[in-house]
Amino acid sequence: MRFTFLGTSAGTPTASRNVTALALAVDGKRDWYLFDCGEGTQHRLLKSRYSSARLKAIFITHVHGDHCYGLPGLIASANMSGRKEPLTICAPDGIEQYVRNTFAFTDVHNLRFPLHFVRTDDQGFQYDDGQISVQAIAMSHRVPCFAFQVKEHPVYHLDESALDALEVPRGPLWGLLQQGESVALDDGRLVRAEQVRCAAWAPRSAIIGGDNDKPDLLLSALQESDLLVHEATFTEDVLARVGPQYMHSTAAMVAKTAENAKLKHLLLTHFSQRYRSGSGAKEYSVNDLYKEAKLYYQGNLQLAEDLQSYQLEKDKALTRL
Amino acid sequence: MRFTFLGTSAGTPTASRNVTALALAVDGKRDWYLFDCGEGTQHRLLKSRYSSARLKAIFITHVHGDHCYGLPGLIASANMSGRKEPLTICAPDGIEQYVRNTFAFTDVHNLRFPLHFVRTDDQGFQYDDGQISVQAIAMSHRVPCFAFQVKEHPVYHLDESALDALEVPRGPLWGLLQQGESVALDDGRLVRAEQVRCAAWAPRSAIIGGDNDKPDLLLSALQESDLLVHEATFTEDVLARVGPQYMHSTAAMVAKTAENAKLKHLLLTHFSQRYRSGSGAKEYSVNDLYKEAKLYYQGNLQLAEDLQSYQLEKDKALTRL
Repeated sequence: MRFTFLGTSAGTPTASRNVTALALAVDGKRDWYLFDCGEGTQHRLLKSRYSSARLKAIFITHVHGDHCYGLPGLIASANMSGRKEPLTICAPDGIEQYVRNTFAFTDVHNLRFPLHFVRTDDQGFQYDDGQISVQAIAMSHRVPCFAFQVKEHPVYHLDESALDALEVPRGPLWGLLQQGESVALDDGRLVRAEQVRCAAWAPRSAIIGGDNDKPDLLLSALQESDLLVHEATFTEDVLARVGPQYMHSTAAMVAKTAENAKLKHLLLTHFSQRYRSGSGAKEYSVNDLYKEAKLYYQGNLQLAEDLQSYQLEKDKALTRL
Repeated sequence: MRFTFLGTSAGTPTASRNVTALALAVDGKRDWYLFDCGEGTQHRLLKSRYSSARLKAIFITHVHGDHCYGLPGLIASANMSGRKEPLTICAPDGIEQYVRNTFAFTDVHNLRFPLHFVRTDDQGFQYDDGQISVQAIAMSHRVPCFAFQVKEHPVYHLDESALDALEVPRGPLWGLLQQGESVALDDGRLVRAEQVRCAAWAPRSAIIGGDNDKPDLLLSALQESDLLVHEATFTEDVLARVGPQYMHSTAAMVAKTAENAKLKHLLLTHFSQRYRSGSGAKEYSVNDLYKEAKLYYQGNLQLAEDLQSYQLEKDKALTRL
């Protein structure tokens, strides 16, 4: 699973960071998924390996503009580029109205592809396209906001020795068993898939968080996750000064949750624009966020950068590409 | 008058060009004006000398997304940055609804500064802030669209020899005369401003066009203009192939109008994304647009580039900064 950060700034863009968006692709596949879509996401995509033509679904964590103002332009540009495939947009209440109103007032009337909006704030929301499944976990923020737990579907290998032992003849029956079907042999015996196949690797699972001031809400989901992408808008000292009303997390808060969950990989993002990159940073540096998180978290800690990709390997190692 | 192009691409951004936006400032003044505001305009501003804090007014030519999808983000960011000054937005029907609906659905409820929308499609629209006046000229496009004719107010010098000849005593009366007032002298004579002051230079005037397939609509306004910024989306060969339904101009069409008007300076912009910059350009190059316009126009022809500024000097020369 390849995570590419298209924006890592909170609220407003900076000269080096855009507002929030994240591309996810499963290994070498060209189809991809977009998580949040701040203004300028389509611009960032022009510098990435992804194009709107192969975008399979969009997931929006919440209605704040730095997470969704790129939607109308991205969709309109995909339309001008000739996209015909339907596009699924999973988002809370408000996003569909925002997009459809925008189009109504700006002369976008006949998209060449349908938009399928799915409400993430509906009970029982689940996205599943046979490659990944996505569930929504309610966060704590100024508006309804959701983290997305992404799980890949297992890929199965057939156990040839088991097939031979059961005397299953080579051919279409093998294919059916690999797909999870049970098959009846000529001699009347029934062979079930789980007798002859096993997952090629333990499926990977990651959580892509939304804005949130209670990282512990993710504690139980993290038990079955390899990686967490979560906002760390402030350091503790800054939060103490600006106050809690914006309902964001500090690097320390997220780090403590990740440590409690014994999480393998933590990717922090969504940094307040006051934190600057590079060694010339004056008052506030993104290094402050790193240092603060490091105090509380023993796992693999990374601070996201725009256009940086991370590959969660099948063996659960995380490779910075 | 300093014109800074924040985006020069038609419809969709490219790796090197953003969609339409143009900053205008009068000489050294820090207040500035924005003409059109495609997605990513606030990002481009971060690389310019302009900030949303000193933005005096926005003019939107028409409702198409590549000319207005940057508005909500720009306004929201100005709000987060603490702007308190009212902001005037001159735009045709649809823009106010688009912005207000966007804010309603994305949790932007209490801006710290008021938005004053002024309809450019109302008869008699005029913007005048004492520094510049702006009038709207109807264009021909798929939706109502307007070019903006910008005129600076004259700056007056007092003619001291005329004042002495008329025996106007130095002091407050001089100030009133410079401001255009008539004054009564102690001996009962009335002195009118035009007797003792003259414009320090002939006021500059420019037209910033919207999308338009009939440049001749500007012919009469161009008689009193020093500079035209106009779209040249296609070359003639490309227009012949894509057809006229998008209602854009070719470089040749605009050049012919400019030549007929004996225009001093023509700045072409809004190029289809198929035209690439640089010497490595393959099939289509922005040079094709330049060469085509040059065939028909003898004046000063420039092709706009993102983040490039042009200064229209008081003597009407155009300096590429």
